[in-house]
Amino acid sequence: MAENTVLIPAETLRDACQYILEKVGVPPDQARIVAEVTVEADMRGVGSHGVLRLPAYVHRVRAGLMAADTQLQVVRERGATVLLDAQGGFGQVAGVHAMSLAIERARQHGVGFVAVRNANHFGIAAYYTMMALPHRMVGIAATNAAPSMAAWGGTTAVLGTNPISVAIPTGQDVDIVLDMASSVVARGKIRAAAAKGERIPLGWALDAEGRPTEDPQAALKGTLAPIGGPKGYGLALVVDALAGVLTGSDYSIYLASLHDLSRRASVGFVMQAVDITAFSDWAEYTEDMRSLIDVIRNSPRAPGVERIYLPGEIEWLKEREYRQSGVPVAVKVVKELQELAAELGAQVELPSV
Amino acid sequence: MAENTVLIPAETLRDACQYILEKVGVPPDQARIVAEVTVEADMRGVGSHGVLRLPAYVHRVRAGLMAADTQLQVVRERGATVLLDAQGGFGQVAGVHAMSLAIERARQHGVGFVAVRNANHFGIAAYYTMMALPHRMVGIAATNAAPSMAAWGGTTAVLGTNPISVAIPTGQDVDIVLDMASSVVARGKIRAAAAKGERIPLGWALDAEGRPTEDPQAALKGTLAPIGGPKGYGLALVVDALAGVLTGSDYSIYLASLHDLSRRASVGFVMQAVDITAFSDWAEYTEDMRSLIDVIRNSPRAPGVERIYLPGEIEWLKEREYRQSGVPVAVKVVKELQELAAELGAQVELPSV
Repeated sequence: MAENTVLIPAETLRDACQYILEKVGVPPDQARIVAEVTVEADMRGVGSHGVLRLPAYVHRVRAGLMAADTQLQVVRERGATVLLDAQGGFGQVAGVHAMSLAIERARQHGVGFVAVRNANHFGIAAYYTMMALPHRMVGIAATNAAPSMAAWGGTTAVLGTNPISVAIPTGQDVDIVLDMASSVVARGKIRAAAAKGERIPLGWALDAEGRPTEDPQAALKGTLAPIGGPKGYGLALVVDALAGVLTGSDYSIYLASLHDLSRRASVGFVMQAVDITAFSDWAEYTEDMRSLIDVIRNSPRAPGVERIYLPGEIEWLKEREYRQSGVPVAVKVVKELQELAAELGAQVELPSV
Repeated sequence: MAENTVLIPAETLRDACQYILEKVGVPPDQARIVAEVTVEADMRGVGSHGVLRLPAYVHRVRAGLMAADTQLQVVRERGATVLLDAQGGFGQVAGVHAMSLAIERARQHGVGFVAVRNANHFGIAAYYTMMALPHRMVGIAATNAAPSMAAWGGTTAVLGTNPISVAIPTGQDVDIVLDMASSVVARGKIRAAAAKGERIPLGWALDAEGRPTEDPQAALKGTLAPIGGPKGYGLALVVDALAGVLTGSDYSIYLASLHDLSRRASVGFVMQAVDITAFSDWAEYTEDMRSLIDVIRNSPRAPGVERIYLPGEIEWLKEREYRQSGVPVAVKVVKELQELAAELGAQVELPSV
């Protein structure tokens, strides 16, 4: 745990988020969903998508840029597919509903594919894909985001880091939960290096002229590097075409950042559930998954590597740890939440820092 | 065009492939499909998956490791999903059939998801995903492959480069066709560097101890580096879980290489079609796609960059060029095909080299 963080029980943190959201008009059941998705990010060690973001959601609601009450509308449906309009509401509320629908459709059709338009930032994608796991289904989700990456060969940000998550049930102690952006690193890592006056590794970012740079200041004026060069660019573009264009949401440079309080953002995402039992017997499937996982975990290791993890396993271990210890939250963030609660008159039990 | 290649009309090349395959017992309609998929790779400039591979297919059939006549069997079906067993036959025949089925199901259910077990190497994934384009559908395909990448932190090959392809119709001059492996580069590039005695860039490969290397010889004894480190590892693992385990095919170290004539290979893949019209009006959709593509293409360019391409655009331009000029094939490969044809008594019209 870093020194400038404080450990808070997950439930205390969820309650705080919920009560703050309720004070700006979010209905209690919806506030609960947003609180759960948000705290889950902190629980998994993905603080960049956790309670740190709550003030931004509140600011958007108060600025009239986001609907406090998320009213989902079914725009189209055909067999295994549904298109929902979130009508400017919370991405988390729309996301949970969308994946629930996808799971329902998958039960009947083997697969369910739900697209959502006109939502907002939905937090960690893995929250939704993991919803499929107890149903013995694969969960898949992708969302677009405000631009921070260039086209391959370009110099200006035209694509978001557009994350993709795939959760695969294994029937073993831990499931496979991939949740990855199309960029090599998150912007936060570059900001952190800049704050410490450190160089960044070549390959993380491009400067404003599109050249690889080790200077975090130049990187912040430039763009994030996509994984695998043209491959990460391709992944981000494909996600924007599906999550942005196909759903009828904003895309590319037209999608406003969560922190841009001058305009609305119409974020889009797609969610899918694939029922394992439409393709395999559960027992046979889990036996093969066990064997695959054994091979991966028992691979001979490179020097200095103590253990080989499955995608999402480190996050799963953190969640187990933080459930006992409490969730580490930066003192700065706790203060911000307390101020926000005080200002809104929300009763929260956050520790004094 | 490299000096040691010769230009051959695509149709001549297809006929040659077809007649050679027929001589080892592949039914004419199936031989035609394999020929078309295979030559399409050369047409798109992806020679590594083109006619270069034909002898390997023939060797496998003659060794009794691959069925000459691909008999597809429906193992399961539920709504939008189908599981096919290719019963040891050609991946190309199974792939074309699988995507056709996915398109059919998508028409009815909005989306179609077809899994194939017990097939063989299917060539370029983009062939199948592009099949969806004229139907105003998105095509998605992923297959597993014999291991060449390590788990993240591991030193031995436990995962294939497991490619993913996504084809998205745009309604414009060119569609978006992503077709990417989970490795930074193909093994062929490292072999080429080794042959020329050149170093390879750091980041392409790991040596047998799992350390990044610039030595192509050390790289060939080691593993290919995944894109984005743990991200590419995660992508490859997710594809193996779906294409290998979910379908009931071989996976990880249990999947034999195309060139391993000591045992059968049971390759698996998954294919999906998503009907644009289940989510959007075609006119509205193509208008937004045009706008997205305009932003991407008109991005300010980095020094030395003449043009910004969409994923698959370079391949599309090559295909247009080679349709006029003929397809460049390495002299060595042409000779091999001629010898194979002569040995089998197949009448082919390949140029003398």
